Amino acid sequence: MKPLTENILTKVIKKRPTHAYKGTFGRVLIIGGTLQYGGAVIMNALAAVNAGAGLVTVATDPANFTAIHSQLPEAMVVDFNSDLIELVQHHDVILIGSGLGDRLDILKETFAAVYPKQVVIVDGSALTLVAEHHLDWPKSQLVITPHQMEWQRVSGVSIAQQAFEAFNVLACANFNVRPILVLKQFHTQIYTPNDIYELNIGGPHQAMGGMGDTLAGIIAGFAAQFFLASLSDAVLAAVYTHSAIADELAQTQYITRPTEISQQLPRFMKKYAN
Amino acid sequence: MKPLTENILTKVIKKRPTHAYKGTFGRVLIIGGTLQYGGAVIMNALAAVNAGAGLVTVATDPANFTAIHSQLPEAMVVDFNSDLIELVQHHDVILIGSGLGDRLDILKETFAAVYPKQVVIVDGSALTLVAEHHLDWPKSQLVITPHQMEWQRVSGVSIAQQAFEAFNVLACANFNVRPILVLKQFHTQIYTPNDIYELNIGGPHQAMGGMGDTLAGIIAGFAAQFFLASLSDAVLAAVYTHSAIADELAQTQYITRPTEISQQLPRFMKKYAN
Amino acid sequence: MKPLTENILTKVIKKRPTHAYKGTFGRVLIIGGTLQYGGAVIMNALAAVNAGAGLVTVATDPANFTAIHSQLPEAMVVDFNSDLIELVQHHDVILIGSGLGDRLDILKETFAAVYPKQVVIVDGSALTLVAEHHLDWPKSQLVITPHQMEWQRVSGVSIAQQAFEAFNVLACANFNVRPILVLKQFHTQIYTPNDIYELNIGGPHQAMGGMGDTLAGIIAGFAAQFFLASLSDAVLAAVYTHSAIADELAQTQYITRPTEISQQLPRFMKKYAN
Amino acid sequence: MKPLTENILTKVIKKRPTHAYKGTFGRVLIIGGTLQYGGAVIMNALAAVNAGAGLVTVATDPANFTAIHSQLPEAMVVDFNSDLIELVQHHDVILIGSGLGDRLDILKETFAAVYPKQVVIVDGSALTLVAEHHLDWPKSQLVITPHQMEWQRVSGVSIAQQAFEAFNVLACANFNVRPILVLKQFHTQIYTPNDIYELNIGGPHQAMGGMGDTLAGIIAGFAAQFFLASLSDAVLAAVYTHSAIADELAQTQYITRPTEISQQLPRFMKKYAN
Repeated sequence: MKPLTENILTKVIKKRPTHAYKGTFGRVLIIGGTLQYGGAVIMNALAAVNAGAGLVTVATDPANFTAIHSQLPEAMVVDFNSDLIELVQHHDVILIGSGLGDRLDILKETFAAVYPKQVVIVDGSALTLVAEHHLDWPKSQLVITPHQMEWQRVSGVSIAQQAFEAFNVLACANFNVRPILVLKQFHTQIYTPNDIYELNIGGPHQAMGGMGDTLAGIIAGFAAQFFLASLSDAVLAAVYTHSAIADELAQTQYITRPTEISQQLPRFMKKYAN
Repeated sequence: MKPLTENILTKVIKKRPTHAYKGTFGRVLIIGGTLQYGGAVIMNALAAVNAGAGLVTVATDPANFTAIHSQLPEAMVVDFNSDLIELVQHHDVILIGSGLGDRLDILKETFAAVYPKQVVIVDGSALTLVAEHHLDWPKSQLVITPHQMEWQRVSGVSIAQQAFEAFNVLACANFNVRPILVLKQFHTQIYTPNDIYELNIGGPHQAMGGMGDTLAGIIAGFAAQFFLASLSDAVLAAVYTHSAIADELAQTQYITRPTEISQQLPRFMKKYAN
Repeated sequence: MKPLTENILTKVIKKRPTHAYKGTFGRVLIIGGTLQYGGAVIMNALAAVNAGAGLVTVATDPANFTAIHSQLPEAMVVDFNSDLIELVQHHDVILIGSGLGDRLDILKETFAAVYPKQVVIVDGSALTLVAEHHLDWPKSQLVITPHQMEWQRVSGVSIAQQAFEAFNVLACANFNVRPILVLKQFHTQIYTPNDIYELNIGGPHQAMGGMGDTLAGIIAGFAAQFFLASLSDAVLAAVYTHSAIADELAQTQYITRPTEISQQLPRFMKKYAN
Repeated sequence: MKPLTENILTKVIKKRPTHAYKGTFGRVLIIGGTLQYGGAVIMNALAAVNAGAGLVTVATDPANFTAIHSQLPEAMVVDFNSDLIELVQHHDVILIGSGLGDRLDILKETFAAVYPKQVVIVDGSALTLVAEHHLDWPKSQLVITPHQMEWQRVSGVSIAQQAFEAFNVLACANFNVRPILVLKQFHTQIYTPNDIYELNIGGPHQAMGGMGDTLAGIIAGFAAQFFLASLSDAVLAAVYTHSAIADELAQTQYITRPTEISQQLPRFMKKYAN
């Protein structure tokens, strides 16, 4: 296991090409947010927009439209009960699952629609739905972001077994599609096709609802944008960025709210772009 | 009567344990907010989240969902007209009553559902409902936060009699459950099972609508989180924190809005954590 | 005509009494905001709350509830289509008219309900409704805040004639109730029962929609709160405060948004309280 | 082609006349924002208000009203499904098209209603609708703000041909009404009746959704307000201001959100007013 270090930031976060337009930095589709969990997709979107995604659309319960626009006019919205196939296919990165609740229908429709070249990030309730209903993973570039209990459900690797890297590697190899695994825990581990990394920053100031939704949004933003890096590197940089900002905030704060982390993204990323 | 001093903060607000996750810092359920008084639960939730509660859910009138998410995507929402029993039982701290209006049905359902190990904070209109309908208190760890008129209704101790501590102590002893009493007034008094404390900070810059809703939210956040302290100490620290932040703001402001106090919590608490 | 000077601020804005609670600083009821003009009552309320009113309730179109709570959880809301009589009678200061549109029914109901001891501030569309329908003024302490065209409609004094103070004084004397007149123009004039004042501060940075709604809200907040001053003095101090803050902001800004002026109230007022 | 320089700012942004009221700075009507693209008109309006327009009304889907008021109480709202003719005729500047989607009916109704003296700015989906349905341009002072693909649709000049100024000039001459063309690209070009200008500031930090909506809003605000400048000069100053603010923000930020640019307008404009 390799330590994940600040070096990943200068490797991934590059000065933007001069001749760029919004399409250059990717189209992100966020799918989630039932009535009860609308905040989850708001936090996804705040993170993705502030991380620099070119265009962000949120497919969610229409009850969440106003709250999204109240904080983030930069995002577009669409009813997640409408036909999503064409919408999914017109985006580069799909983030599905934060606050998705029990909407198995939406998850299946999305998985069926995606193409191999797309990046699909599966988070939150979508992971539990995959496990409960024995779904195949989408035929795409796949990133999954379970915490330990979700990983147990999805992989069958018990939390005790998860301490042994080999179990996690083996489980990934058994997927119908090889994922990049972000295994969230005290020291989050990232399993890429080539290596395993451990995050040694971050802290208990981050232990509050919404932190994972924000991480998923940063991953989406980085995946959409840093196409010169490998997807693995983009994910690694997103994971590092998320906790590095939190640690900066924790210098003067007892807790670090997820929405504050998103607000700090443009300033933080500037320090590493070159 | 003992003066409540800044010492309570260092006693209660501790450096967070390194191996923590959001569940470590408690699940808070806020119940209240009829259509007319939706702001009350928003202020409850802003306070609880910023105080560091791990997970915060607001059970309220669905008309309030968008306003909650517009300010606080970190909170989850649920319709308070739905079946609340299971929801109540899955939380560690229940704060009920801010802006609850005349919803006796919700109050009864909640009181019936709680377990002895849970912390229940009863605030605002819930106190008047208890008095009017002669309800038994819930069989839980109980905190009540009346102002003087509400205390008179609840206990039968007139405002004049309240000047004598013995009347208040006796009234608490007559409850079917021994409460921690936060008796809000010029110098707020806190009656714990062992001692009586008086708050000597705070001031008229705090005299505006929503101040009590914010206090109740801080109490909920502290109760959820500072499980190594006694509940009494957590309540005492919450009461002190609320007015100490207000006094800091009042150095440069004529009045101190409740929502501003909540925003200052992470920075303020950092100074005392060790 | 006397110049209105900064002296009015130290005369009116007093250090708050130590033994105070929210009721001490008055209950303000704001009535207005049809669907199209919901922003008007939001600006009323932002001003009144930040000016220090103890309790603020907004009676408006229910479509505006969420936007109010999204910015100002400290305010309560009520449907202005419901029976307003009892509500009106339970408040100390009534501000009616900002964004009221053509709701003559609400204006009549309010005027009929008020008591002589209440302060009623009539602003915006309510002034035009009074003129068009030849309504009697409410039997209360009356403040009216017309711009020049509205004053012409209400009083019959043409804009040309308004340059002569005597016409305005005479028109006020002809009201069934003697008002305090805030006549908004290049140099706003305030006609009190005893004197006429002219405001010599403020500037074209204030020339934008919502400026009058904010002024009306500050007047309401000051009237509710500074009961030791005369109502005339409270109005004078509110008018001065509104433009003084704008002028401060204009040191570094080309225009001064009404909502920014409200945000500055607590800090500004602190400088004068003693 | 002339470079567009900072000089345009001191030429256009003038110290406001002392005797001014909100009408002096123009009435702006923004038309757009279907349910899915509500954020577009919010960004239009944030820009127009902060740029200093006297009065701003947004005609949009009623589902967007609350989000508009949550961020910008200074704007008025109206249902864009209602009769717009009279509304259009009572405004000085009409900005139509941001997030208008496929609402051809609204576009036609607006074009039919405008007078020659009005300024009409056509943006976003309205440009595609004009091209698809071969609409005549409105008989007004016309500003159009296409990106290169939209310009190809509208004018028939292919993106390759657009590199040659003469093709663009010729296409403008063929319009039934001579437009001011803001051709958005790497170095945005502005075709006025007399000259062609090129913008040499701005950068890829601006490459994100909503940037064009914000530019259109600034143009509307400047057109409404700087009536002593020619319309061409007002448009030129708006284009320069938009990117100059972004470049300032980019000193410390990796990306510059459209809503942040709007927030900086009052401070930025102050530096040039004299």
